[in-house]
Amino acid sequence: MTAITGKQYIDRINKLKTNVWVDGKQVTGNISEHPAFKGIMKSQASLYEMQHDNLLKSILTYPSPSTGNPVGLSYLQPKTKADLAKRREMIQQWAKSNNGMMGRSPDYMNTTLMAFASSAQFLEGKENCFPENLRGFYEYARENDISITHTFVDPQVNRGQYYLEATTEPIAARVIDSNDEGIIVKGARLLATQGGITEELLVMSAAGILEEEKGFAFSIPSNTKGLKFLCRESFVGGDSTFNYPLSSRYDEMDTIVVFDNVLVPWERVFYYNNLDVSNNFMMASAFQPFALHQVACRQIIKTEFVLGVVQSIIDTINIGEYLHVQEKASEIIVALETMKALVMKSEAEAKLDESGVMRPDRTTLQISINVFPKVYPRFAEIIQILGASGLMSIPTENSFQSSIRKDLDQYLQSKADTAENRVKIFRLAWDMTMSSFGTRQTLYERLFFGDPVRLSSQLYFTYDKNPYVQRVQEVLNSNTNQLNNL
Amino acid sequence: MTAITGKQYIDRINKLKTNVWVDGKQVTGNISEHPAFKGIMKSQASLYEMQHDNLLKSILTYPSPSTGNPVGLSYLQPKTKADLAKRREMIQQWAKSNNGMMGRSPDYMNTTLMAFASSAQFLEGKENCFPENLRGFYEYARENDISITHTFVDPQVNRGQYYLEATTEPIAARVIDSNDEGIIVKGARLLATQGGITEELLVMSAAGILEEEKGFAFSIPSNTKGLKFLCRESFVGGDSTFNYPLSSRYDEMDTIVVFDNVLVPWERVFYYNNLDVSNNFMMASAFQPFALHQVACRQIIKTEFVLGVVQSIIDTINIGEYLHVQEKASEIIVALETMKALVMKSEAEAKLDESGVMRPDRTTLQISINVFPKVYPRFAEIIQILGASGLMSIPTENSFQSSIRKDLDQYLQSKADTAENRVKIFRLAWDMTMSSFGTRQTLYERLFFGDPVRLSSQLYFTYDKNPYVQRVQEVLNSNTNQLNNL
Amino acid sequence: MTAITGKQYIDRINKLKTNVWVDGKQVTGNISEHPAFKGIMKSQASLYEMQHDNLLKSILTYPSPSTGNPVGLSYLQPKTKADLAKRREMIQQWAKSNNGMMGRSPDYMNTTLMAFASSAQFLEGKENCFPENLRGFYEYARENDISITHTFVDPQVNRGQYYLEATTEPIAARVIDSNDEGIIVKGARLLATQGGITEELLVMSAAGILEEEKGFAFSIPSNTKGLKFLCRESFVGGDSTFNYPLSSRYDEMDTIVVFDNVLVPWERVFYYNNLDVSNNFMMASAFQPFALHQVACRQIIKTEFVLGVVQSIIDTINIGEYLHVQEKASEIIVALETMKALVMKSEAEAKLDESGVMRPDRTTLQISINVFPKVYPRFAEIIQILGASGLMSIPTENSFQSSIRKDLDQYLQSKADTAENRVKIFRLAWDMTMSSFGTRQTLYERLFFGDPVRLSSQLYFTYDKNPYVQRVQEVLNSNTNQLNNL
Amino acid sequence: MTAITGKQYIDRINKLKTNVWVDGKQVTGNISEHPAFKGIMKSQASLYEMQHDNLLKSILTYPSPSTGNPVGLSYLQPKTKADLAKRREMIQQWAKSNNGMMGRSPDYMNTTLMAFASSAQFLEGKENCFPENLRGFYEYARENDISITHTFVDPQVNRGQYYLEATTEPIAARVIDSNDEGIIVKGARLLATQGGITEELLVMSAAGILEEEKGFAFSIPSNTKGLKFLCRESFVGGDSTFNYPLSSRYDEMDTIVVFDNVLVPWERVFYYNNLDVSNNFMMASAFQPFALHQVACRQIIKTEFVLGVVQSIIDTINIGEYLHVQEKASEIIVALETMKALVMKSEAEAKLDESGVMRPDRTTLQISINVFPKVYPRFAEIIQILGASGLMSIPTENSFQSSIRKDLDQYLQSKADTAENRVKIFRLAWDMTMSSFGTRQTLYERLFFGDPVRLSSQLYFTYDKNPYVQRVQEVLNSNTNQLNNL
Repeated sequence: MTAITGKQYIDRINKLKTNVWVDGKQVTGNISEHPAFKGIMKSQASLYEMQHDNLLKSILTYPSPSTGNPVGLSYLQPKTKADLAKRREMIQQWAKSNNGMMGRSPDYMNTTLMAFASSAQFLEGKENCFPENLRGFYEYARENDISITHTFVDPQVNRGQYYLEATTEPIAARVIDSNDEGIIVKGARLLATQGGITEELLVMSAAGILEEEKGFAFSIPSNTKGLKFLCRESFVGGDSTFNYPLSSRYDEMDTIVVFDNVLVPWERVFYYNNLDVSNNFMMASAFQPFALHQVACRQIIKTEFVLGVVQSIIDTINIGEYLHVQEKASEIIVALETMKALVMKSEAEAKLDESGVMRPDRTTLQISINVFPKVYPRFAEIIQILGASGLMSIPTENSFQSSIRKDLDQYLQSKADTAENRVKIFRLAWDMTMSSFGTRQTLYERLFFGDPVRLSSQLYFTYDKNPYVQRVQEVLNSNTNQLNNL
Repeated sequence: MTAITGKQYIDRINKLKTNVWVDGKQVTGNISEHPAFKGIMKSQASLYEMQHDNLLKSILTYPSPSTGNPVGLSYLQPKTKADLAKRREMIQQWAKSNNGMMGRSPDYMNTTLMAFASSAQFLEGKENCFPENLRGFYEYARENDISITHTFVDPQVNRGQYYLEATTEPIAARVIDSNDEGIIVKGARLLATQGGITEELLVMSAAGILEEEKGFAFSIPSNTKGLKFLCRESFVGGDSTFNYPLSSRYDEMDTIVVFDNVLVPWERVFYYNNLDVSNNFMMASAFQPFALHQVACRQIIKTEFVLGVVQSIIDTINIGEYLHVQEKASEIIVALETMKALVMKSEAEAKLDESGVMRPDRTTLQISINVFPKVYPRFAEIIQILGASGLMSIPTENSFQSSIRKDLDQYLQSKADTAENRVKIFRLAWDMTMSSFGTRQTLYERLFFGDPVRLSSQLYFTYDKNPYVQRVQEVLNSNTNQLNNL
Repeated sequence: MTAITGKQYIDRINKLKTNVWVDGKQVTGNISEHPAFKGIMKSQASLYEMQHDNLLKSILTYPSPSTGNPVGLSYLQPKTKADLAKRREMIQQWAKSNNGMMGRSPDYMNTTLMAFASSAQFLEGKENCFPENLRGFYEYARENDISITHTFVDPQVNRGQYYLEATTEPIAARVIDSNDEGIIVKGARLLATQGGITEELLVMSAAGILEEEKGFAFSIPSNTKGLKFLCRESFVGGDSTFNYPLSSRYDEMDTIVVFDNVLVPWERVFYYNNLDVSNNFMMASAFQPFALHQVACRQIIKTEFVLGVVQSIIDTINIGEYLHVQEKASEIIVALETMKALVMKSEAEAKLDESGVMRPDRTTLQISINVFPKVYPRFAEIIQILGASGLMSIPTENSFQSSIRKDLDQYLQSKADTAENRVKIFRLAWDMTMSSFGTRQTLYERLFFGDPVRLSSQLYFTYDKNPYVQRVQEVLNSNTNQLNNL
Repeated sequence: MTAITGKQYIDRINKLKTNVWVDGKQVTGNISEHPAFKGIMKSQASLYEMQHDNLLKSILTYPSPSTGNPVGLSYLQPKTKADLAKRREMIQQWAKSNNGMMGRSPDYMNTTLMAFASSAQFLEGKENCFPENLRGFYEYARENDISITHTFVDPQVNRGQYYLEATTEPIAARVIDSNDEGIIVKGARLLATQGGITEELLVMSAAGILEEEKGFAFSIPSNTKGLKFLCRESFVGGDSTFNYPLSSRYDEMDTIVVFDNVLVPWERVFYYNNLDVSNNFMMASAFQPFALHQVACRQIIKTEFVLGVVQSIIDTINIGEYLHVQEKASEIIVALETMKALVMKSEAEAKLDESGVMRPDRTTLQISINVFPKVYPRFAEIIQILGASGLMSIPTENSFQSSIRKDLDQYLQSKADTAENRVKIFRLAWDMTMSSFGTRQTLYERLFFGDPVRLSSQLYFTYDKNPYVQRVQEVLNSNTNQLNNL
């Protein structure tokens, strides 16, 4: 097998007939034709298709270690810093095609799976752990270019500090039984993005689990019996790319995943009923360094696009001469270059781990994930402050095709643009930050790696502050000026 | 005549057959049945209807000075501080019915017109000024409970500092001719909120006009020949109040107003071709104190509602024990009490103006309009940080009426609520801050009285800093300690 | 007796020969002549002296309820809102004389004692409580115009959540014994401001005490046997008011108070060994409303002065034309008017408490103490940003009296001022925000009522959010649009 | 010649007998013994001395290209990225010895001169330009390890936009004449840091000069006839390193430089009376990249130290368990790693300029100078919030040597430290952020490269935003979804 095409992706998903619910109705027929999914599936397909572009395939694929066939480069387990650079180029090549709007482009999940599999030896010899299953699944996915999503988080029932579920029926998904064929899972998991439009669902428990039955890791096909994907409201504004340049293409959908006595076959169980492993594997594995590297690489492309939008607004209504406008645009430039510098540093300080994989520097990437959730919402704010009333002067494509076009052409022209182009810029800015799609993007970046308060707490505890405390002690202990003998 | 009912309002608007364009189509039939307008028109109608509620009419109306009939209290020209208090109660009574979501509830415009008319003597004896027309229009509106909107701003073509329009055809509306019947206006004006669903359009120039033909003030019926209202995309999410508790009711619509050689009859012209009056009337008149008073009173009610939503989120997922959550909720409390204090101070420091009208203190209200545009966006941010993934777990009303309801009931329940109520809270929070309707609300509050940078500049220049500079001089000049002789 | 003069104050303090330690030396001789205290004691004396100024005494004093003699108005137990207004005028009259730089001007402590005494009935009939002692001490202080300071806080040994002192010898002051004459106290208390230059020391425990022996309230003369005041480094820069216009006059000194087996006579014990009373009296009493009212009134005067300094800087180097400068000055104006509005609201919403005392509204004043600690440090920042290098171009008074004066006159002149006046403005700005005195002022305002995080938490818990949660419920329960029958 | 020792530095400065004025008195005798200078001169000397430390000399020196003798590595004109890394190590080695508190350690000026000299070819063939003088002075300084300071800025008379000096006598220094020997300069320049304790003064005009006579560059010995250094007040708190661990060592002094008809000999004139060169040389030269590189390298070391101080406070009073404390410490970690990443990126993206010098990437370093002035004042704020009352519980060294020591030992002990060590930590924190020395440090970092508003404006204009505007255009022009043919 080999890296797939866009058509292969769409055909595979359509064939699954996964149990997906939108607005109270089960999806029937080809999901790729459903209004909530057709845009994002085309965008996803175009990513796969790029793997066969003659100019790009050397960037996007590499020879499979088992067959030599070209497989997706996001599966590459890097052994060198040059490999890391290749991974970055691959990620950013794909990200440019959607300007970073797809948080779950396939490279994110491929990277995630690659990282977990590369750390499989952590599971060796531990109770209820099956490292060979994890490695096997990784190879299967790599060789077949399998599309995957994941779900790591329990339902948001009660976020108090000492919550233990007290209902008789499970809410959070848990192992309720096991038999010769596998383990039986019942309950729900939160927010699988792209749930229903991937072939596989990777399920893993985040750290902090208190009950053994809630700690596990496995992957199953999306159309497994008993598995249901319950969608939020679709944020696709409509088909028109004039009206909805982003939501018509990139609304990835978020789903609640229901496990209705789902049987997970043994060969797909990576571990279960092992609280210690469940609470430690994610952090011990290469997941965080590699996932954060993928995320930061994508966010750079997105920030570039934000800067492009802001500058387009500035140009079209000619506000570049104002100091406070310059200051706001500079905030974006500062964020962009900071993110670039952090990714560069994470690669420069990469180290081989015990499995011989070249991990980018985690600490540096923790910085990026403490920075970006704070600056991205500010980008949206800057766009609103600069765009001002222009963001509400947004007639639709149909308006421009009606008899009022001549009015629009005259009255919505701007210093630098025709009315149509000016309205397109503002509609794009609006769709990026003010449509339901846009605000979901902001929320997504705000919370990508979890609660910002917890992320800064994690950084505080993992960062080695000791050398600097020592420097303070040295000053306190030096009672005399230097060179007192001079 | 007398204060009207909701039905009267709707009938009047439907009868006008105003030239309104939505998504490339002219509205035909009853505008009150059009999807983009039916919700807001019902909400508007319900305000008028409240004037006939036995419990409320003493709050919402007062006896007309000319007929003794009950007329809308927002038309009251206050002579005492008690009158101001009545105005506040009236404004907040109406605001509570929509939780402050209607920026253009009729009291805003009635207040605006009342304020301008009360300052009509500024126009006495000045060239091309017709104070009697302004007073007459105010009385007409008061006695007939006329619904009005306004437009004060030119199209956003070029916001550079020294811009003069250079096109042959006008872009910004201007007087291009006059004749026996009136003045002829051609060009466009920006963002008449509720344009097309009011009986009248008040048109006035903001300060800073450089060309005489662009400085004028008049009012004309919405169905005047040559007048067109071009709508932005509708932000009504749909009819379901479960799904769209706010946008289904309160999307006020913003319109570009086109004047296609519109004849404004002389009796409706308040002034024209008088640059000095045009650039000074708005600030010299009672407009700013009264409009800001109305706005601040409404914003208080809105802030209370935001606090209610935030507390509902805190309760439903049980996060009230966290210091950082308490801190964020407290930010809203601080803003709420600050706004209340400012309104109270503006009334306590009110003074009679030269026309015998009791003006609330402008300086104090300038503070409120420097504060609120900064805090309101922060409210939206707080909701997003606290609501987190809950804001994306928002299945629709149809979902709750389908066979997956039992899954939703189980998996979306929260500590304090059933799944349905919890989803309703989150959908409300989402519609208030993340739907297209919600982000437009944020933009609206951010920019209500114009560019925040200019507002703070205006405050700086109008505030009397001299007494405090004098205190500094006294310190600088006192070379000795006090009581040196002790 | 009657309100005292400045000389009386100084004589009384000098006579006490209180045990005060500065920089490793015990103060001997007249403390009013000690470099660390002479400036502040003169400033304090000048406040007392004002009580005898013919123009001011009606503002600063009132007839004693027991003798009819004029006594300090800060002792007034207000029965009406007019009384509250008198209190405000009194506070601000004194504050203007030092531009709000004295956080412990006598009115602060007089107010504190008045408030506690007015709530003495809370102590009635409770174990180990002596309300009559509290009332008696209040009357004694009022009639004799006694100067007082207080200490409420334990040493900062360990601020972890569950700290219990484990040393054999006490660190935090506690009752270690009692006998016929009184209770014996051993240990220390933190930061009595003006410690050593007042006649009395009021000692009270803040809420949150876990051990009975640490909960008490009493007052003792500063020269009581076993009582020691250990000073921090003095922040008086020197005598020159040119060089140190503020620190030469207003450095109030902070002291650690040591109780070395101090006997507190029974008639001065207000309560002890009663955990419940100790943890609740402060919040139940009128202390917080009245103390916060005094504080906010003073902070208004201080903010006016900050605005005066900022405007003086703007004028002297002519930077008023810049938008970002206007914006920064406006921030101060916004804060100033906000504080004024909050004080006005606290008085307008004052209510009689169970003892018949007119308490200003606590909630409103809690807002002020959540606002000011955030804005005051920003004032200091604004001064530094605007003053820039001017704040380092600050030659001393001696320089202006030397032969280089002609250079200074030429090279340090500014647009609006002579070199000397310009340097004075900048030295004042520096002494207010950058000298050791100035930064202590910032720290003091930042922490005046304790840790800001706790203050916002307290506001969250005490504020009634329920009416607004109800409004949300109403919206959620109204499934239909209003006026659906129209 | 060769890199000098500490003693050589001190001897050279003492011998100059430069005309320096402190507090109205001219400095006489050895300046190295003057209270305002002895600490900083010892610290400076210790830097030179390190050049002779066997372990450090390979880091701090390199073989002179003309003699092979070891000369200061800050003079190195880098040809490779490895050279840049050497420069960084050198800078940080020196910075560690003073924890980044010396903004004008010799490497700053050596770097500045090296950078200007490396760009001397810009001056070739231009009127009134003497590139050979600049190169010669650089070699002289390098070979003799000359200590230098500079002054680039005019007095702050009037910062309005269109200011032209109107006095008859010059205020800002200008060329008033020239003769056979050189040019004659009269007037003043602002804030030469370390003025009077360096051998040379480099004088150069910043961009934006409107008058030819104010545009020049030269260097003269500090004791040149007619040259005077007028000091601000000294911020040395005293000799005790217990009391003033930083100001006793690192107060660099800022001086107004007066040119009283100073003759600058022709061989030291680099250019004059050439408006175009004067306004462009600084930006066109390698100055900004190299100076910013030195600054950022130093600021990293300083930030590490700040983190050490903050963590020491956290440890000593045991507040590490609080989320909001963790969050604040994390802010410093984020800033530290961001600065490190930016410096790394500036080196990785370094390019050879037209003179064959390897310039670090200017854009990246512009980011650092937009970041640091914002975060450093926040560090000071964090220290004040966390240190709280501990920052006022700071008895002096003398107190610990007096009979009250046992009280201090008991009552100021903390969870992790003895009283003495705890007080030392807090005194260090205070001296770093709250003493006159500490606030001057904050001001210095805030304004190091000029007005932050201008810095962000400069970044906006120099940054290439075009590629991102192009990406926006591509989206606007793609009217169809990708892969529409699928």
